[in-house]
Amino acid sequence: MEKNLTQIQKEVDHWVQQYEKPYFSPLSMMAALMEEVGEVARVMNIKYGDKPAKGKEDLMNLQEEIGDVLFSLVCIANSEGFSLNDAYLQKIEKLNNRDSSRFKKKEEK
Amino acid sequence: MEKNLTQIQKEVDHWVQQYEKPYFSPLSMMAALMEEVGEVARVMNIKYGDKPAKGKEDLMNLQEEIGDVLFSLVCIANSEGFSLNDAYLQKIEKLNNRDSSRFKKKEEK
Amino acid sequence: MEKNLTQIQKEVDHWVQQYEKPYFSPLSMMAALMEEVGEVARVMNIKYGDKPAKGKEDLMNLQEEIGDVLFSLVCIANSEGFSLNDAYLQKIEKLNNRDSSRFKKKEEK
Amino acid sequence: MEKNLTQIQKEVDHWVQQYEKPYFSPLSMMAALMEEVGEVARVMNIKYGDKPAKGKEDLMNLQEEIGDVLFSLVCIANSEGFSLNDAYLQKIEKLNNRDSSRFKKKEEK
Repeated sequence: MEKNLTQIQKEVDHWVQQYEKPYFSPLSMMAALMEEVGEVARVMNIKYGDKPAKGKEDLMNLQEEIGDVLFSLVCIANSEGFSLNDAYLQKIEKLNNRDSSRFKKKEEK
Repeated sequence: MEKNLTQIQKEVDHWVQQYEKPYFSPLSMMAALMEEVGEVARVMNIKYGDKPAKGKEDLMNLQEEIGDVLFSLVCIANSEGFSLNDAYLQKIEKLNNRDSSRFKKKEEK
Repeated sequence: MEKNLTQIQKEVDHWVQQYEKPYFSPLSMMAALMEEVGEVARVMNIKYGDKPAKGKEDLMNLQEEIGDVLFSLVCIANSEGFSLNDAYLQKIEKLNNRDSSRFKKKEEK
Repeated sequence: MEKNLTQIQKEVDHWVQQYEKPYFSPLSMMAALMEEVGEVARVMNIKYGDKPAKGKEDLMNLQEEIGDVLFSLVCIANSEGFSLNDAYLQKIEKLNNRDSSRFKKKEEK
Protein backbone atom coordinates (compact mmCIF):
# COMPACT_ATOMS: atom_id res chain seq x y z
CA MET A 1 0.00 0.00 0.00
CA GLU A 2 1.66 3.21 -1.22
CA LYS A 3 2.19 6.01 1.29
CA ASN A 4 0.79 9.48 0.69
CA LEU A 5 2.81 12.64 1.29
CA THR A 6 1.62 13.02 4.87
CA GLN A 7 2.68 9.47 5.66
CA ILE A 8 6.00 10.06 3.89
CA GLN A 9 6.61 13.16 6.00
CA LYS A 10 5.94 11.11 9.15
CA GLU A 11 8.20 8.27 8.05
CA VAL A 12 11.08 10.67 7.32
CA ASP A 13 10.56 12.41 10.66
CA HIS A 14 10.65 9.07 12.44
CA TRP A 15 13.95 8.21 10.72
CA VAL A 16 15.46 11.61 11.41
CA GLN A 17 14.45 11.71 15.08
CA GLN A 18 16.82 8.88 15.96
CA TYR A 19 19.74 11.28 15.46
CA GLU A 20 21.14 13.86 17.84
CA LYS A 21 20.57 16.67 15.38
CA PRO A 22 17.44 15.59 13.52
CA TYR A 23 17.27 18.39 10.95
CA PHE A 24 20.03 20.54 9.51
CA SER A 25 19.68 24.28 10.12
CA PRO A 26 17.43 25.94 7.48
CA LEU A 27 20.24 27.37 5.33
CA SER A 28 22.15 24.11 5.61
CA MET A 29 19.10 22.22 4.31
CA MET A 30 18.98 24.78 1.52
CA ALA A 31 22.60 24.09 0.58
CA ALA A 32 21.88 20.35 0.67
CA LEU A 33 18.93 20.89 -1.69
CA MET A 34 21.22 22.80 -4.08
CA GLU A 35 23.80 20.01 -3.99
CA GLU A 36 21.15 17.41 -4.88
CA VAL A 37 19.71 19.56 -7.67
CA GLY A 38 23.25 19.96 -9.03
CA GLU A 39 23.55 16.19 -9.21
CA VAL A 40 20.28 15.94 -11.11
CA ALA A 41 21.65 18.61 -13.47
CA ARG A 42 24.81 16.60 -14.07
CA VAL A 43 22.91 13.42 -14.94
CA MET A 44 20.45 15.30 -17.20
CA ASN A 45 23.36 17.07 -18.91
CA ILE A 46 25.06 13.76 -19.68
CA LYS A 47 21.80 12.22 -20.89
CA TYR A 48 20.41 15.16 -22.87
CA GLY A 49 23.12 17.81 -23.09
CA ASP A 50 26.69 18.08 -24.24
CA LYS A 51 28.46 16.85 -21.14
CA PRO A 52 30.51 13.73 -21.85
CA ALA A 53 30.13 10.89 -19.35
CA LYS A 54 33.02 9.79 -17.24
CA GLY A 55 33.15 6.16 -16.24
CA LYS A 56 31.39 6.14 -12.93
CA GLU A 57 28.97 8.88 -13.89
CA ASP A 58 27.53 6.48 -16.46
CA LEU A 59 26.22 4.46 -13.57
CA MET A 60 24.40 7.42 -12.11
CA ASN A 61 20.70 7.00 -11.87
CA LEU A 62 18.34 9.89 -12.48
CA GLN A 63 15.66 8.28 -10.33
CA GLU A 64 18.08 8.10 -7.41
CA GLU A 65 19.06 11.75 -7.76
CA ILE A 66 15.42 12.85 -7.93
CA GLY A 67 14.78 10.78 -4.80
CA ASP A 68 17.49 12.77 -3.04
CA VAL A 69 15.84 16.06 -4.04
CA LEU A 70 12.44 14.80 -2.87
CA PHE A 71 13.96 13.81 0.48
CA SER A 72 15.41 17.33 0.85
CA LEU A 73 11.97 18.81 0.22
CA VAL A 74 10.40 16.53 2.83
CA CYS A 75 13.03 17.59 5.38
CA ILE A 76 12.41 21.30 4.71
CA ALA A 77 8.64 20.82 4.99
CA ASN A 78 9.00 18.84 8.23
CA SER A 79 11.41 21.33 9.74
CA GLU A 80 9.21 24.26 8.73
CA GLY A 81 6.09 22.47 9.90
CA PHE A 82 3.94 22.53 6.81
CA SER A 83 2.24 19.88 4.73
CA LEU A 84 3.69 18.95 1.34
CA ASN A 85 0.22 17.83 0.34
CA ASP A 86 -1.08 21.32 1.07
CA ALA A 87 1.80 22.72 -1.01
CA TYR A 88 0.77 20.42 -3.83
CA LEU A 89 -2.91 21.35 -3.58
CA GLN A 90 -1.99 25.03 -3.58
CA LYS A 91 0.06 24.48 -6.76
CA ILE A 92 -2.80 22.65 -8.51
CA GLU A 93 -5.15 25.46 -7.52
CA LYS A 94 -2.70 27.99 -9.01
CA LEU A 95 -2.37 25.98 -12.22
CA ASN A 96 -6.13 25.81 -12.62
CA ASN A 97 -6.50 29.53 -12.14
CA ARG A 98 -3.57 31.87 -12.74
CA ASP A 99 -1.75 29.67 -15.22
CA SER A 100 -4.71 28.13 -17.00
CA SER A 101 -4.29 30.28 -20.10
CA ARG A 102 -0.51 30.54 -20.03
CA PHE A 103 0.22 27.69 -22.44
CA LYS A 104 -1.38 26.90 -25.77
CA LYS A 105 -4.02 24.22 -25.51
CA LYS A 106 -4.55 21.44 -28.03
CA GLU A 107 -7.21 22.36 -30.54
CA GLU A 108 -10.59 20.87 -30.02
CA LYS A 109 -11.96 18.74 -32.83
CA MET B 1 -8.79 11.39 0.72
CA GLU B 2 -5.15 12.38 0.17
CA LYS B 3 -3.49 11.30 -3.06
CA ASN B 4 -0.30 9.24 -3.06
CA LEU B 5 2.64 10.05 -5.34
CA THR B 6 1.44 7.74 -8.12
CA GLN B 7 -1.94 9.48 -8.11
CA ILE B 8 -0.25 12.87 -8.05
CA GLN B 9 1.86 11.91 -11.06
CA LYS B 10 -1.30 10.91 -12.91
CA GLU B 11 -3.15 14.09 -11.96
CA VAL B 12 -0.27 16.27 -13.18
CA ASP B 13 -0.03 14.30 -16.41
CA HIS B 14 -3.74 14.76 -16.97
CA TRP B 15 -3.40 18.53 -16.46
CA VAL B 16 -0.35 18.76 -18.70
CA GLN B 17 -1.83 16.69 -21.54
CA GLN B 18 -4.39 19.36 -22.35
CA TYR B 19 -1.58 21.52 -23.77
CA GLU B 20 0.05 21.35 -27.18
CA LYS B 21 3.48 20.79 -25.70
CA PRO B 22 2.76 18.83 -22.52
CA TYR B 23 6.28 18.68 -21.08
CA PHE B 24 9.21 21.03 -21.56
CA SER B 25 12.32 19.49 -23.10
CA PRO B 26 14.51 17.79 -20.46
CA LEU B 27 17.05 20.60 -20.10
CA SER B 28 14.26 23.16 -20.09
CA MET B 29 12.59 21.31 -17.20
CA MET B 30 15.99 21.33 -15.51
CA ALA B 31 16.26 25.12 -15.87
CA ALA B 32 12.71 25.47 -14.52
CA LEU B 33 13.68 23.36 -11.50
CA MET B 34 16.67 25.64 -10.89
CA GLU B 35 14.48 28.74 -11.09
CA GLU B 36 12.07 27.33 -8.51
CA VAL B 37 14.90 26.27 -6.19
CA GLY B 38 16.30 29.78 -6.49
CA GLU B 39 12.98 31.16 -5.30
CA VAL B 40 13.00 28.83 -2.31
CA ALA B 41 16.55 30.07 -1.60
CA ARG B 42 15.40 33.69 -1.68
CA VAL B 43 12.57 33.11 0.78
CA MET B 44 14.78 31.05 3.12
CA ASN B 45 17.49 33.72 2.93
CA ILE B 46 15.02 36.42 3.95
CA LYS B 47 13.61 34.24 6.73
CA TYR B 48 16.84 32.78 8.11
CA GLY B 49 19.73 34.58 6.43
CA ASP B 50 20.96 38.11 5.99
CA LYS B 51 18.90 39.13 2.98
CA PRO B 52 16.64 42.08 3.77
CA ALA B 53 13.04 41.74 2.61
CA LYS B 54 11.64 44.04 -0.01
CA GLY B 55 7.97 44.83 0.20
CA LYS B 56 6.41 42.23 -2.02
CA GLU B 57 8.92 39.57 -1.05
CA ASP B 58 7.53 39.72 2.46
CA LEU B 59 4.39 38.21 1.07
CA MET B 60 6.22 35.26 -0.42
CA ASN B 61 5.19 31.94 0.92
CA LEU B 62 7.73 29.18 1.48
CA GLN B 63 5.04 26.51 1.14
CA GLU B 64 4.10 27.87 -2.27
CA GLU B 65 7.71 27.86 -3.48
CA ILE B 66 8.24 24.30 -2.26
CA GLY B 67 5.05 23.32 -4.10
CA ASP B 68 6.59 24.69 -7.29
CA VAL B 69 9.73 22.59 -6.78
CA LEU B 70 7.62 19.49 -6.10
CA PHE B 71 5.66 20.11 -9.29
CA SER B 72 8.92 20.35 -11.26
CA LEU B 73 10.01 17.00 -9.85
CA VAL B 74 6.70 15.40 -10.80
CA CYS B 75 7.06 16.72 -14.36
CA ILE B 76 10.61 15.34 -14.69
CA ALA B 77 9.53 11.95 -13.32
CA ASN B 78 6.52 11.84 -15.67
CA SER B 79 8.54 12.87 -18.69
CA GLU B 80 11.29 10.37 -17.87
CA GLY B 81 8.74 7.66 -17.13
CA PHE B 82 9.69 6.65 -13.62
CA SER B 83 7.84 6.46 -10.34
CA LEU B 84 8.51 9.08 -7.65
CA ASN B 85 7.36 6.55 -5.11
CA ASP B 86 10.07 4.16 -6.31
CA ALA B 87 12.56 7.04 -6.04
CA TYR B 88 11.41 7.61 -2.47
CA LEU B 89 11.61 3.91 -1.55
CA GLN B 90 15.10 3.74 -3.04
CA LYS B 91 16.13 6.72 -0.90
CA ILE B 92 14.72 5.17 2.29
CA GLU B 93 16.55 1.94 1.50
CA LYS B 94 19.79 3.92 1.05
CA LEU B 95 19.24 5.78 4.34
CA ASN B 96 18.69 2.53 6.20
CA ASN B 97 21.83 1.01 4.81
CA ARG B 98 24.63 3.20 3.49
CA ASP B 99 23.83 6.23 5.60
CA SER B 100 22.66 4.51 8.76
CA SER B 101 25.89 5.25 10.65
CA ARG B 102 26.66 8.58 9.02
CA PHE B 103 25.11 10.78 11.69
CA LYS B 104 25.44 10.56 15.44
CA LYS B 105 22.50 8.84 17.08
CA LYS B 106 20.87 9.93 20.29
CA GLU B 107 22.27 8.09 23.26
CA GLU B 108 20.19 5.30 24.65
CA LYS B 109 19.13 5.60 28.22
CA MET C 1 41.38 51.03 -18.11
CA GLU C 2 39.66 47.71 -17.30
CA LYS C 3 40.08 46.29 -13.80
CA ASN C 4 41.47 42.81 -13.23
CA LEU C 5 39.90 40.35 -10.79
CA THR C 6 42.10 41.45 -7.89
CA GLN C 7 41.07 45.07 -8.44
CA ILE C 8 37.42 44.01 -8.74
CA GLN C 9 37.66 42.14 -5.44
CA LYS C 10 39.05 45.29 -3.81
CA GLU C 11 36.40 47.53 -5.31
CA VAL C 12 33.60 45.26 -4.09
CA ASP C 13 35.16 45.06 -0.63
CA HIS C 14 35.37 48.84 -0.51
CA TRP C 15 31.67 49.13 -1.42
CA VAL C 16 30.63 46.45 1.06
CA GLN C 17 32.66 47.86 3.96
CA GLN C 18 30.45 50.95 4.19
CA TYR C 19 27.66 48.77 5.64
CA GLU C 20 27.18 47.56 9.18
CA LYS C 21 27.22 43.92 8.13
CA PRO C 22 29.60 43.89 5.16
CA TYR C 23 29.21 40.26 4.10
CA PHE C 24 26.31 37.88 4.60
CA SER C 25 27.08 34.74 6.60
CA PRO C 26 28.56 31.98 4.41
CA LEU C 27 25.36 29.96 3.96
CA SER C 28 23.41 33.15 3.38
CA MET C 29 25.83 34.10 0.58
CA MET C 30 25.31 30.58 -0.76
CA ALA C 31 21.54 31.04 -0.81
CA ALA C 32 22.02 34.40 -2.56
CA LEU C 33 24.18 32.70 -5.19
CA MET C 34 21.46 30.09 -5.74
CA GLU C 35 18.84 32.79 -6.14
CA GLU C 36 20.92 34.61 -8.76
CA VAL C 37 21.66 31.38 -10.64
CA GLY C 38 17.93 30.69 -10.62
CA GLU C 39 17.33 34.02 -12.31
CA VAL C 40 19.90 33.21 -14.99
CA ALA C 41 18.09 29.88 -15.47
CA ARG C 42 14.76 31.67 -15.95
CA VAL C 43 16.13 34.03 -18.60
CA MET C 44 17.94 31.22 -20.43
CA ASN C 45 14.78 29.09 -20.32
CA ILE C 46 12.73 31.86 -21.90
CA LYS C 47 15.39 32.53 -24.53
CA TYR C 48 16.34 28.93 -25.40
CA GLY C 49 13.87 26.64 -23.67
CA ASP C 50 10.15 26.13 -23.52
CA LYS C 51 9.25 28.68 -20.87
CA PRO C 52 6.89 31.33 -22.21
CA ALA C 53 7.79 34.92 -21.38
CA LYS C 54 5.57 37.00 -19.20
CA GLY C 55 5.51 40.70 -19.84
CA LYS C 56 8.12 42.01 -17.50
CA GLU C 57 10.34 38.98 -17.86
CA ASP C 58 10.79 39.93 -21.49
CA LEU C 59 12.71 42.90 -20.25
CA MET C 60 15.10 40.77 -18.24
CA ASN C 61 18.67 40.99 -19.33
CA LEU C 62 20.95 37.97 -19.29
CA GLN C 63 24.02 40.17 -18.91
CA GLU C 64 22.54 41.73 -15.80
CA GLU C 65 21.74 38.35 -14.24
CA ILE C 66 25.23 37.06 -14.98
CA GLY C 67 26.61 40.22 -13.36
CA ASP C 68 24.66 39.35 -10.22
CA VAL C 69 26.16 35.85 -10.14
CA LEU C 70 29.66 37.27 -10.66
CA PHE C 71 29.10 39.69 -7.79
CA SER C 72 28.04 36.78 -5.55
CA LEU C 73 31.25 34.95 -6.43
CA VAL C 74 33.35 38.02 -5.63
CA CYS C 75 31.64 38.32 -2.23
CA ILE C 76 32.27 34.65 -1.40
CA ALA C 77 35.92 34.93 -2.45
CA ASN C 78 36.38 38.12 -0.41
CA SER C 79 34.67 36.70 2.63
CA GLU C 80 36.66 33.46 2.39
CA GLY C 81 39.87 35.37 1.75
CA PHE C 82 41.03 33.86 -1.50
CA SER C 83 41.89 35.25 -4.90
CA LEU C 84 39.49 34.75 -7.80
CA ASN C 85 42.44 35.11 -10.13
CA ASP C 86 44.11 32.18 -8.38
CA ALA C 87 40.87 30.23 -8.75
CA TYR C 88 40.89 31.03 -12.46
CA LEU C 89 44.56 30.06 -12.90
CA GLN C 90 43.91 26.79 -11.06
CA LYS C 91 41.02 26.05 -13.44
CA ILE C 92 43.13 26.78 -16.53
CA GLU C 93 45.85 24.52 -15.16
CA LYS C 94 43.27 21.77 -14.66
CA LEU C 95 41.88 22.23 -18.17
CA ASN C 96 45.35 21.96 -19.67
CA ASN C 97 46.09 18.79 -17.79
CA ARG C 98 43.27 16.60 -16.47
CA ASP C 99 40.68 17.64 -19.02
CA SER C 100 42.92 18.08 -22.06
CA SER C 101 41.75 14.83 -23.67
CA ARG C 102 38.18 14.88 -22.41
CA PHE C 103 36.60 16.47 -25.47
CA LYS C 104 37.14 15.65 -29.13
CA LYS C 105 39.56 18.02 -30.83
CA LYS C 106 39.14 19.43 -34.30
CA GLU C 107 41.00 17.33 -36.85
CA GLU C 108 44.26 18.70 -38.03
CA LYS C 109 44.54 19.36 -41.73
CA MET D 1 50.75 40.44 -15.12
CA GLU D 2 47.16 39.59 -14.13
CA LYS D 3 44.58 39.30 -16.90
CA ASN D 4 41.41 41.36 -16.85
CA LEU D 5 38.00 39.85 -17.63
CA THR D 6 38.21 40.68 -21.34
CA GLN D 7 41.55 38.91 -21.57
CA ILE D 8 40.18 35.97 -19.58
CA GLN D 9 37.23 35.69 -21.98
CA LYS D 10 39.69 35.60 -24.90
CA GLU D 11 41.92 33.02 -23.26
CA VAL D 12 38.96 30.72 -22.53
CA ASP D 13 37.68 31.13 -26.09
CA HIS D 14 41.10 30.23 -27.43
CA TRP D 15 41.15 27.07 -25.29
CA VAL D 16 37.61 26.11 -26.25
CA GLN D 17 38.08 26.67 -29.98
CA GLN D 18 40.46 23.74 -30.28
CA TYR D 19 37.51 21.37 -29.80
CA GLU D 20 34.97 20.18 -32.33
CA LYS D 21 32.09 21.54 -30.28
CA PRO D 22 33.56 24.63 -28.61
CA TYR D 23 30.60 25.59 -26.44
CA PHE D 24 27.82 23.46 -25.03
CA SER D 25 24.29 24.40 -26.09
CA PRO D 26 22.83 27.19 -23.92
CA LEU D 27 20.70 24.97 -21.68
CA SER D 28 23.55 22.50 -21.39
CA MET D 29 25.85 25.30 -20.19
CA MET D 30 23.08 26.21 -17.76
CA ALA D 31 22.97 22.65 -16.38
CA ALA D 32 26.77 22.69 -16.07
CA LEU D 33 26.56 25.94 -14.10
CA MET D 34 23.98 24.36 -11.77
CA GLU D 35 26.22 21.34 -11.24
CA GLU D 36 29.19 23.54 -10.32
CA VAL D 37 27.09 25.68 -7.98
CA GLY D 38 25.90 22.46 -6.35
CA GLU D 39 29.50 21.51 -5.66
CA VAL D 40 30.17 24.91 -4.07
CA ALA D 41 27.06 24.31 -1.94
CA ARG D 42 28.38 20.93 -0.79
CA VAL D 43 31.75 22.33 0.27
CA MET D 44 30.16 25.33 2.02
CA ASN D 45 27.71 23.00 3.79
CA ILE D 46 30.55 20.85 5.12
CA LYS D 47 32.55 23.91 6.17
CA TYR D 48 29.75 26.03 7.65
CA GLY D 49 26.62 23.88 7.81
CA ASP D 50 25.57 20.57 9.27
CA LYS D 51 26.73 18.23 6.54
CA PRO D 52 29.32 15.78 7.83
CA ALA D 53 32.41 15.35 5.66
CA LYS D 54 33.15 12.08 3.99
CA GLY D 55 36.78 11.21 3.48
CA LYS D 56 37.44 12.53 0.02
CA GLU D 57 35.14 15.48 0.42
CA ASP D 58 37.49 16.77 3.08
CA LEU D 59 39.98 17.34 0.35
CA MET D 60 37.59 19.45 -1.68
CA ASN D 61 38.73 22.96 -2.21
CA LEU D 62 36.31 25.85 -2.21
CA GLN D 63 38.62 27.95 -4.38
CA GLU D 64 38.63 25.19 -6.99
CA GLU D 65 34.84 24.93 -7.01
CA ILE D 66 34.46 28.69 -7.32
CA GLY D 67 36.92 28.58 -10.23
CA ASP D 68 34.63 26.08 -11.94
CA VAL D 69 31.63 28.39 -11.51
CA LEU D 70 33.64 31.35 -12.85
CA PHE D 71 34.65 29.29 -15.87
CA SER D 72 30.98 28.44 -16.53
CA LEU D 73 30.12 32.15 -16.42
CA VAL D 74 32.91 32.97 -18.88
CA CYS D 75 31.63 30.28 -21.27
CA ILE D 76 28.06 31.60 -21.13
CA ALA D 77 29.26 35.19 -21.70
CA ASN D 78 31.45 34.10 -24.62
CA SER D 79 28.72 32.01 -26.19
CA GLU D 80 26.17 34.80 -25.77
CA GLY D 81 28.62 37.39 -27.00
CA PHE D 82 28.67 39.85 -24.15
CA SER D 83 31.37 41.29 -21.95
CA LEU D 84 31.68 40.13 -18.35
CA ASN D 85 33.35 43.42 -17.57
CA ASP D 86 30.24 45.23 -18.85
CA ALA D 87 28.13 42.92 -16.67
CA TYR D 88 30.29 43.86 -13.69
CA LEU D 89 30.12 47.59 -14.43
CA GLN D 90 26.33 47.34 -14.79
CA LYS D 91 26.16 45.64 -11.38
CA ILE D 92 28.33 48.31 -9.72
CA GLU D 93 26.14 50.99 -11.26
CA LYS D 94 23.05 49.24 -9.86
CA LEU D 95 24.62 48.94 -6.41
CA ASN D 96 25.46 52.63 -6.37
CA ASN D 97 21.94 53.60 -7.32
CA ARG D 98 19.05 51.23 -6.70
CA ASP D 99 20.62 49.36 -3.81
CA SER D 100 22.51 52.21 -2.18
CA SER D 101 20.02 52.55 0.65
CA ARG D 102 19.06 48.90 0.95
CA PHE D 103 21.43 47.97 3.74
CA LYS D 104 22.18 49.80 6.94
CA LYS D 105 25.33 51.88 6.75
CA LYS D 106 27.88 52.16 9.51
CA GLU D 107 27.24 55.20 11.63
CA GLU D 108 29.39 58.19 11.00
CA LYS D 109 31.44 59.45 13.91
